[in-house]
Formats: sequence, C-alpha cells, structure tokens
Amino acid sequence: MRHFLSTVDWSHEALDGLLALAADLKRSPLNDALRGKSIALMFLNPSMRTRTSFELGMQQLGGIAIVLQPGKDAWGVEFAPGAVMDGDAEEHIAEVAGVLSRYCDMIGLRAFPGFKNWSDDRTDSVIKSLAQHASVPVINMETIVHPCQELALMLTLKEHLGQLARRKFVLTWTWHPRPLNTAVANSALLAATKFGMDVTLLCPEPDYVLDTQFMEAASSNARASGGSMKVTHDIEAAYDGAEVVYAKSWGALPFYGDPEREWELRQKYRHFMVDEEKMSLTNHARFSHCLPLRRNIKATDAVMDADYCVALDEAENRLHVQKAVMMTLMGAAP
Amino acid sequence: MRHFLSTVDWSHEALDGLLALAADLKRSPLNDALRGKSIALMFLNPSMRTRTSFELGMQQLGGIAIVLQPGKDAWGVEFAPGAVMDGDAEEHIAEVAGVLSRYCDMIGLRAFPGFKNWSDDRTDSVIKSLAQHASVPVINMETIVHPCQELALMLTLKEHLGQLARRKFVLTWTWHPRPLNTAVANSALLAATKFGMDVTLLCPEPDYVLDTQFMEAASSNARASGGSMKVTHDIEAAYDGAEVVYAKSWGALPFYGDPEREWELRQKYRHFMVDEEKMSLTNHARFSHCLPLRRNIKATDAVMDADYCVALDEAENRLHVQKAVMMTLMGAAP
Amino acid sequence: MRHFLSTVDWSHEALDGLLALAADLKRSPLNDALRGKSIALMFLNPSMRTRTSFELGMQQLGGIAIVLQPGKDAWGVEFAPGAVMDGDAEEHIAEVAGVLSRYCDMIGLRAFPGFKNWSDDRTDSVIKSLAQHASVPVINMETIVHPCQELALMLTLKEHLGQLARRKFVLTWTWHPRPLNTAVANSALLAATKFGMDVTLLCPEPDYVLDTQFMEAASSNARASGGSMKVTHDIEAAYDGAEVVYAKSWGALPFYGDPEREWELRQKYRHFMVDEEKMSLTNHARFSHCLPLRRNIKATDAVMDADYCVALDEAENRLHVQKAVMMTLMGAAP
Repeated sequence: MRHFLSTVDWSHEALDGLLALAADLKRSPLNDALRGKSIALMFLNPSMRTRTSFELGMQQLGGIAIVLQPGKDAWGVEFAPGAVMDGDAEEHIAEVAGVLSRYCDMIGLRAFPGFKNWSDDRTDSVIKSLAQHASVPVINMETIVHPCQELALMLTLKEHLGQLARRKFVLTWTWHPRPLNTAVANSALLAATKFGMDVTLLCPEPDYVLDTQFMEAASSNARASGGSMKVTHDIEAAYDGAEVVYAKSWGALPFYGDPEREWELRQKYRHFMVDEEKMSLTNHARFSHCLPLRRNIKATDAVMDADYCVALDEAENRLHVQKAVMMTLMGAAP
Repeated sequence: MRHFLSTVDWSHEALDGLLALAADLKRSPLNDALRGKSIALMFLNPSMRTRTSFELGMQQLGGIAIVLQPGKDAWGVEFAPGAVMDGDAEEHIAEVAGVLSRYCDMIGLRAFPGFKNWSDDRTDSVIKSLAQHASVPVINMETIVHPCQELALMLTLKEHLGQLARRKFVLTWTWHPRPLNTAVANSALLAATKFGMDVTLLCPEPDYVLDTQFMEAASSNARASGGSMKVTHDIEAAYDGAEVVYAKSWGALPFYGDPEREWELRQKYRHFMVDEEKMSLTNHARFSHCLPLRRNIKATDAVMDADYCVALDEAENRLHVQKAVMMTLMGAAP
Repeated sequence: MRHFLSTVDWSHEALDGLLALAADLKRSPLNDALRGKSIALMFLNPSMRTRTSFELGMQQLGGIAIVLQPGKDAWGVEFAPGAVMDGDAEEHIAEVAGVLSRYCDMIGLRAFPGFKNWSDDRTDSVIKSLAQHASVPVINMETIVHPCQELALMLTLKEHLGQLARRKFVLTWTWHPRPLNTAVANSALLAATKFGMDVTLLCPEPDYVLDTQFMEAASSNARASGGSMKVTHDIEAAYDGAEVVYAKSWGALPFYGDPEREWELRQKYRHFMVDEEKMSLTNHARFSHCLPLRRNIKATDAVMDADYCVALDEAENRLHVQKAVMMTLMGAAP
C-alpha cells in the first residue's frame, strides 16, 4: 500500500507514469476502474477545484466521493498523539482514520498549516498522523505541499512545451493582502527541479526564501535531473528569457504567526504583481497559477486574459492527474 | 449553446416544449440521457428544493451534480469586471466560470441580489457575468428572476386547470417579517402572462409594484398571448373570481437597502396573509406558493392544509422541469 | 409503510432479521436493490459516521443520498404545530416532509434535543412530526434515541461473543467536559435488554439515571427476554465479571438546561474514565463506544488501542445495518 503525501517519495519515472496515465484519461475520461470504490475527502479549509475534481473524477471512474468538513458538518479532530482531549475536538485522528478506512478505499485530506508555529507545521504532522492511522491509501489535497497541483502543473507544461529539461522556469512571489501558505511554492520548486528544469525562485528578499527542507530537496532534485536551482531578488533578471512564469504569494517564514510584523515587510512589494511589462521580458513564456487568484493583485487582467496564460489548463488537469493517482494507488492502473 | 437565465429569452412555444418533456419525465423518471455528464451547482444562498431537485434530477438522468457554496466551503467570488481584488473574494468569476466549464457540462447559480442598491441589482449582472465567462450552458437557480420556478408553476397549473388562457391568476403580496427578494414575484408575472392568463397583481400600495422592466415585459407578454395584466390594491376585487391565487412576499423597491424605513410601510399590512375567508371569494381557486413559506404569516394553516393548496405539486414539479431544462440545454431531449 | 424511529416499535425477531441481512451485506456489499431510489438526510447537528455510512450505503445499493443541513445550507425548520412563524424558521416541517416525500423514497433525520426543557424533549416530538407529515419511511439518525447505533452495537457483540443472552453488559457513564445527549445511553439499555443480556447501568449517583420511560422500557425488555437490568454507582461492582463495557457520557436530567449547576455535580466524576485498571476487573470484556470519543477523557489511549476495543467494528457495522434498514423499509430485502 502506498500513499500520495509528497512527491519527495516518488521518483521522476513514477511521476511520469502518472502523467502518461493522466493524458490517457484526458482523452478517454469514463471507465469503470474504481466501480464500487469510494474516497473520503476531508477538508479543513475551503476548496473549489480540489473538491470538484475529486468528486467528479471518482464518479467518472465508477466510484463515489464523500466530502467531510471536520469542525463544520463533522466533528472537530485532534491530531496530537497522547492528547488529553478537553479542548474543542470531539474525536482523535486515530478513530477518524480507523473509521474512514473501514468505510472507504482511500482518504484525501486538506489541512493548511496553523500559521502559528512553523517549527511544528514544517513537519507536516497532521497528514502523517492520518497516514499512520489509516489502513487505506491517503492523498494529500494540500498541507505544506500540494503534490496533486505539481502533477497538474507538469502535465500542463508538457502539453505546451513538450520536453521540459533545461527550460527556464521562474517561480515568482507575488503580492497578496495576507501571508499565505507556502505549499504551492514548495511544490512548484520540487516538481520543476525533478523534471530537470532550470528553476529561478524570485522573491523580494531573503526572508521570503522557502523552508530549507524544500530548498535542499529542490537542489538535490536539480542535481539528479540535470536541471538547476537559484534564488534571485532581481525582477528583471528573473523574467529575462523565462519560458514559464509561475506565480504564487506566500508569507515570510521568519515572521510566521505574526502577520502584523510580516505586513511591514510585505507592504513594500505590491510591484511584484505579474503584468504585461514583466511578461515582455520573457522568452514568450507561458504564465500560470494554481488558482484561486486575486486579479489585479497577483496578476493583471491583461495577463490572466492573455493567450499565454495556461491557468485554466492547469486547473483542468487537476481532474486528469488525480484520476491517475487514484487508479494507481488502488492498483487499477493499466 | 443556450443558457436558461430568464424566460424573457424563451418563446411560449419553447417553454411549452419544456413542459411537455417534463410531463414525460414525470411519468418515466429514469433514463441515461446525461450519462457521464455533470453540473456544478453554485449556491450563494440557502436552498432546499432547488438543490435536492437538481442533485436528484441529474442522478436520475445518469449524471452527477457537484454542490459548491462560494464563501463557505469554496472561495469567495468577485463578479465585477476590472476589480482590484483586495477585498474578501479570493477569485474572480472569470476563473470560476472557466474552471467549472472545464470540469462540468453545465453550471447552475443561485445568487440573490445584494439588497443594497436596486439600480445595480436590477441588471442581474452576477449571473450574466457567469454566462459571459462560461463555455457551457448556465442555469438560473434564482437571482432577480426564478425561471425554474416559473416552469414548475406552469406545469402545476396545467395539471390542475388544463387550458390556462384567460384564467384569472392573482399574484398577491403577503406579509413577512423582512423585505424579501422580488424574484419569484417577477417570475410569476412573466410566466402567467406568457401563457395567456388574466393576471392581477395585488399589493398594498404603489410602492410594492414590481420593477418596470418586469411590469413592461409582463404587459408585452399579455399583449402577445391574448392575456391581460393589471394592478390593484383592493384585496376583495383581486380575489373575486380568481382561479389561481399565488402568494409571495417581497420588499418595496423604493426602500431597497433600507429595511428600517421599509418596515414603517410593511408593518401595516399583516392582513394580506392568505386565509380561508379570502379564498372563499374566489372561483374555487387553487392556491400555491414557491416555498419556503412561514405558516400563519404568509398563509394560514387552514389554507396550507386545504385540498386546493397545490404548493407540494409545484415543489415536486421543480424536479421534472429542471430535468427537462438540463436535457434540452445538453441537446439530449428526444 | 413502516418507519425506523425507535427499536421500541420493533420486536427482537424483527431486529434479528435486520442483523442477519446486515451480516449478508457485510459479506457482499454491492447490489442494485435500491437502484433509482433516494434518501434525504437531514442533519440538524454534526455527523461523521452517520453521514458517511448512509451516503456510501445508499450508493452501494444503487441509490443516492441527498444531504441537507437546515439552518445552514437549507432553510431553518419550524416543528411546532400551529406556530405563528415570525421567528427564525422559514418553513414548517409539514412542507419539508411533504416536499422531501415527493422527491425521495426515504428521509433520515438527526435532531439532537434542545437542552432546554427535558419534559418537551423527552417526547421526541421533532422526529415524530416528520414521520407524521412524511409519506415515505423515516429513519432516526439520532434524536433522544439512536436505533441505528443499537443495531451496530448488537451486530458487533454477536460477532465477538456469539450468543448474547445472559452475558454481562455494563453501560458506564463517563466524564466529558459538557453534559451530552442521553440518546446512545438510552439506546444501549434498550438494545442490550431486548437481546437478553444482563445489563448493569453504572453512573455516579441517582441524578445520572436515565429517563423513566427508557428505564421502564429496558426493564420490560429484560422481563420479556430473560435478561436483567440493574443500576449501580459502585465502579468495582459494575466492572466485576463484565463481558461488555460500553461507555457514554451524558448530562444529569434533573439539571437539564442548566449546565452550570450540572457542572457542580459533574466535576467530581473524572475518575469514571475507562482505563486498564478498571478493564482488568472484567471477564475479558470487550470495550466499545459509539464515537466520537475524547481520548484520555472518556477512555485512555491504552483502552482505545487495546485488542479488546471494538469501537471501529461497531462504527463499520453502522454501514451494514443501515443498508439492511433501508432495504427492509423499501421492501427490497430478500
């Protein structure tokens, strides 16, 4: 039995296999591979694309998805081992994982970090505790990484660029009114380096560099794949010659849990918004974003509406790659 | 490709075709016309009948419905073109419509007006922006009109009265503790006049007359269909000889966005509640309401429990007419 | 047509028939017995197991479940007959039951008591009003009893113990930070006595004894089944020789609606938590709980993780017994 918690645990070849299956499913979306099977989807945070694509994908494979929102329509969950549960949570992940493993054939979880203590959150303990207590495969629907998004991004880039090795991929920090989760940024680095791209991380200053575990994993990926990884704070140098511009906003980790102080830093960087002028510096780059995206904050209307914006393709590909993941985890891939 | 946004865009003949198909589906509810198809149902407001009937109807046609509540389980949505999105909304209808068009074969939207500025809300810009950005058919699940309710009402009246032309249809305003949406009232006028009925709008005083665009469209419908449309504030004259009494409460448009001042007007009119005494003035009229209905506020228990109350028939017919709409929009009608 | 509101209305033989069918469905989970059928599931309170098992169970029988949360995603509901509805509720159970009976083939309801006035809540009037107004079978998903849980518990005990008659069953009150619903405690008494077990109700003092209607029904069950029923406040005497320990926390009925005064009583009884020391007094007893359970509050980690804990089996059996109930109510049992 295998989980899909992070692409760190999956080889380039295995990920390529998922993408190949996803491309097949995109051409031929309906089958009965998971007939009578089910997945429980637990959302601790809002979702539009993830929920829709998993619900629909499971249906297109003959199965069913059950959506649960612990703390809202279902009981609040405690994740800490050994807790004396006299707080808000009515049940422990041990039972939640155990029960859902009896009912369903897979479990998905979205659990954004708590934005209080990064040294805790960086261990990704919430989804790991689910995987520990579950007896069925677990799928990460975004925690501090977002591996399903990685697959969708890579499928989209392959569709548009063909071969990815040594193509210049820029991950740019963008403005947003609040400090957001780093998951998609971490994942973009992991994926692009694993597929051999020349990756530039553009962010306003060193405080916005991502967690060392992901910086090091990405560097390691780059060494193994023949790609490269570097960091810059120079907007023009980053965009120059880029073939992919991938945007995401995130919070500065040294100020994690302290949004007021983070704001003092952040407020100076509205100009990181992606616009046509910046895009004109690139080598006819495709632009993408995981969505949701605030228009005219993260990227201008002109960028979002341009032919080079492939964000809708990436969103669509969520459906296809997740079907491939589910079939593979269930041993139902051809 | 065609949307179902308002019956203003649909001819009497086309609507009659939908009703005929709905009657067939009522006799024979299960088929595979939409096998493998899906509809995304976006609710910005609560729903019981609409959601249940769409979810169930899609299932009965072999498809699946995905329910999304932007701002609750999904991200908040901005509808204004060109907005600088530094408010609450995390994504724009351009992306929401684009993504859902990639996943699903149809999109339904419930978006009650904002109750702040009628000159904005009367343009129905929210659902129009969805239709503009969607590449699949869009269905109105209630905005400032409620076309699915219109079809259910007309099917119900045909079942009970047979021929509808020149039958006296009274739309009566009723009491309710708050100023409500005018959508069902607007729609009742549009539908009854399109089907050639002699329509009387009964409301307490001129401030409760509906928006001119719907009054004029209803008058125009009446001229085309051989029916008629008039307004009265005289309860007895309205009920006299009525063959259908249709009740709805709504807010006075001149006080839109100002519920305190509207209350000064409203508080005088509790006696517009539908009761047996008023019903006794009619020509054995059927009574109906779109539901939800506050008993002993809008209508008495005696009226709701009477044989002449056909509100449950109308609610049931929502299922059948919406299946007919979905099959027709998907080109799957016989 | 028959409802499943309380096991009080069902004979031991009829319940045994449901368990036999459940055991068959556990071995062979997929069939088409309810193809094209639907159930509306109304939740006035949170749920994890109940919702997942009903949604999944209906799907495994070829049908569909529609989940509604009145007051959240659907309109608030008034249950009192004759109410002048000028409060929060937008519609009456008469219409809700009537409409859902038109759409769906069964209706489930979870409606915890109001925790204000036990003399009202003890009549179980909310689900009775649903059953009165519905024209399809109604299933109790927990009100002041929880009959689906009873079936799951009995199936689990049969799996582990074989013959249940004269086996010592201890229902123990446990600590919890708040006074909870008595439903599962009431139901445990009803079920264990109906199946002929020797039942001991262990609670801290007489104020925690359950409502007379359930105490009397359980005594009556015991007389008919050849089992027995007694109450004790002596922890060691209760655990001594037990073959089943079933835990639940509930509020003291004399202080119903007054949690501050109940707390004065309650705070003294943290030591009722189930732990290994207490379990060592038993005759190799199985331990179970309906879940959700607060670890290290109601029971220790060691108890929950022990081989003798069968709470996950009981949770799993919810799925199988509810499928049996639905098939039986629909006349689709073999």
